[in-house]
Amino acid sequence: MTKRRRRRGAASLDLVAGNGLITRRALLGGGVTFVGALGTAGTTTGAGAEPLADAPWSLAVGGITPPVQTASPFEKDVTRTLSNPRGEFRTSHARTPHQLLGGTVTPNGLHFSINHGGVPDIDPAEHKLVLHGMVRRPLEFTLESLSRHPLVTRMAFIECAGNSAPMFAKEPVQATVQMLHGLISNAEWTGVPLSALLDEAGIDPTAKWLVAEGADAQFLDRSVPVKKAYDDALIAVYQNGEHLMPGNGYPMRLLLPGYQGNMNVKYVRRIKVINQPAYSYFETKNYSQILPGGKTWRFHFVMEVKSFITYPSFGLNLKAPGLYAISGVAYSGTGRIAKVMVSADGGNSWGEAALQGPIHDKAFTRFVMPWRWDGQPAILQSRAYDDGGNAQPLRAEFVAMRGEATRPVTTPLAFPNQHYNSITSWAVDSKGDIKHVYV
Amino acid sequence: MTKRRRRRGAASLDLVAGNGLITRRALLGGGVTFVGALGTAGTTTGAGAEPLADAPWSLAVGGITPPVQTASPFEKDVTRTLSNPRGEFRTSHARTPHQLLGGTVTPNGLHFSINHGGVPDIDPAEHKLVLHGMVRRPLEFTLESLSRHPLVTRMAFIECAGNSAPMFAKEPVQATVQMLHGLISNAEWTGVPLSALLDEAGIDPTAKWLVAEGADAQFLDRSVPVKKAYDDALIAVYQNGEHLMPGNGYPMRLLLPGYQGNMNVKYVRRIKVINQPAYSYFETKNYSQILPGGKTWRFHFVMEVKSFITYPSFGLNLKAPGLYAISGVAYSGTGRIAKVMVSADGGNSWGEAALQGPIHDKAFTRFVMPWRWDGQPAILQSRAYDDGGNAQPLRAEFVAMRGEATRPVTTPLAFPNQHYNSITSWAVDSKGDIKHVYV
Repeated sequence: MTKRRRRRGAASLDLVAGNGLITRRALLGGGVTFVGALGTAGTTTGAGAEPLADAPWSLAVGGITPPVQTASPFEKDVTRTLSNPRGEFRTSHARTPHQLLGGTVTPNGLHFSINHGGVPDIDPAEHKLVLHGMVRRPLEFTLESLSRHPLVTRMAFIECAGNSAPMFAKEPVQATVQMLHGLISNAEWTGVPLSALLDEAGIDPTAKWLVAEGADAQFLDRSVPVKKAYDDALIAVYQNGEHLMPGNGYPMRLLLPGYQGNMNVKYVRRIKVINQPAYSYFETKNYSQILPGGKTWRFHFVMEVKSFITYPSFGLNLKAPGLYAISGVAYSGTGRIAKVMVSADGGNSWGEAALQGPIHDKAFTRFVMPWRWDGQPAILQSRAYDDGGNAQPLRAEFVAMRGEATRPVTTPLAFPNQHYNSITSWAVDSKGDIKHVYV
Repeated sequence: MTKRRRRRGAASLDLVAGNGLITRRALLGGGVTFVGALGTAGTTTGAGAEPLADAPWSLAVGGITPPVQTASPFEKDVTRTLSNPRGEFRTSHARTPHQLLGGTVTPNGLHFSINHGGVPDIDPAEHKLVLHGMVRRPLEFTLESLSRHPLVTRMAFIECAGNSAPMFAKEPVQATVQMLHGLISNAEWTGVPLSALLDEAGIDPTAKWLVAEGADAQFLDRSVPVKKAYDDALIAVYQNGEHLMPGNGYPMRLLLPGYQGNMNVKYVRRIKVINQPAYSYFETKNYSQILPGGKTWRFHFVMEVKSFITYPSFGLNLKAPGLYAISGVAYSGTGRIAKVMVSADGGNSWGEAALQGPIHDKAFTRFVMPWRWDGQPAILQSRAYDDGGNAQPLRAEFVAMRGEATRPVTTPLAFPNQHYNSITSWAVDSKGDIKHVYV
């Protein structure tokens, strides 16, 4: 009887914030009957379920098991969106469809990729990484010699500094999570600590910087503080268990957990130890942070605390009132996620979401918040906090600090500025249609 | 001077066990100069590394960024091995190439798969899961209605009860890690706790068992204790972030962390609550554990604590003496890995390996042990211990408890018995060639 009473009353008794947010205790089971409110999506079959009707795939032998399996044909739309599908002579962006994914790992086929000079086809037997400059003895590594070292494994997100850039627009761009936030992905990376290689080479104790350079036609080079190399930098050789994807740096890349994407130099062929930053094109012009008033920051390495709701979101309209699970990802380039607050009323009230553990340093944390949508307008938001005491800024705070685009943004492919980390707001109207709004 | 002295003396000062095993303190950096012993694989470039020679891929624009990226053509041999490549009317096994992978995640394309009736091509809009039997109200779920529930995410291995079965042979079968141990993989799974669905349906408190049935032509059905459903069972809908692979249960499967693979029923279409086991074909005949003397166990659910070295291993011979990192995976269907011991002298002495954290419940843990191979014969072994106090059995212990194959095993595709979890031993001869041996 206790259980039954709890079930019937759950939606009204366990509200934690306005407009239908339900306590995360509901996640522990028994408290909420999701299916009871699912309408036609979850109907009962009556007491007599037997015999079950056989579907066509129950009545015939299936297909051949292939050497490398791929997604179901029914998942054909779960792909990266391409900014340059014909490979014209300009940068290519491939964005991850976060609104169609779950959990925290980005599968390798869907990891985002930006290539300024195309995707190189590198022979790992010929590729070499040179470690030189202010060291006692310059060294050279191949994929094979790196692989003989003790490797370490960790989860880490990589986020382009220009991820979410359309949100600098003065008016909210109507676009999916993929188009707004698809230039970030999260994977398990395995590689050699850069500190071990610097020790092998005998780094000059007065050296303060490295410059890392890629082997593709772009020759992207970026300056990295030696301190970061000793904190947690890797030369990564595996991505989610297999060697790196060609678009993610095969056969080896620099991994700088939490630092802006392009610093994680792909196809890395050189790490030179130096005593001042190189002030390369990519750090002084291409990926610069422009501030209100037109000044720029000299460097802006860390991708700051951030979250976004992946479901419900633009393009995934609700079909009927009832119970839903609001879900999204949170992360911080500073450390671990401490909590994520969710609002269904545009920030008037907030409830704490459940986090999926374990919570990794500088990696995706999935959050979930049960929600009873009563068919009235709602505005869904998430706000992340990290263990360094940093809070994801409200939009007004963010715009005051970092400014807005000075010209109209007519496409989600625009990059008016870098390092957007404020809140994303999804407005649900009474029909269940979802729009991107600013609050 | 301190650093220099430590480097020169590392290999002799920091031995932790016989035949060249080096303290895992060496993993912390600065203690071991791997490259110094790498011979030609890691040569110095001299002080003048500039300008670097440009490879062909440095001098031309690369390829088009595709919607779904795939592995480099240079990785074409990193595939699953197939027992039935033409899809004849019999079971198909696809084995994971663990000796070519790193980290802990098995990428989805390479997750092992066993299909007794081919790989079905299931339309997720048509597939339904019925929950019925001893419940107050039978329920029916689709992928869409399941996805509206609060989902949980966890790492978990799935291991076929017949994984490593060739090791029941009286004489060691010469085969790669893939052929011996390829019927296990590890992934991040996301789904609905089965306990939540049973609560929604109002399970009869006297019910003790479930029977789960798949929708493919095999109709595999297995009995599962209700207690396991409430411990940690999921109806999984995402695998490493994307919807399940067709060979791994698309669009939904039962996930029973730590239980033998076939119980994690793929394409699950029915969960019926019952009051005694179903004693189905698959639990009474096909996946039975045969004991010495010819008796069998009625049930044997848990995949017990186990580990194997993936590198060095059969097929990956050593080219020259020097420093190496012995690496492998450990796991336990009972809980978390507590430690892994490694031997280079056939079990005469053991050193504790470094574990890559975080250490997940019922999931892969990667272990690493630095090793200086001096060109003399060696026998490499790993032995895992879990946090429940269980130790991976030595071979003599295991054979005494579970027996050996009674007939000669002529192929690594044979399945003389189930649940092999003893030690794997790789013998390195003075040329660096590696054989599978029993010790």
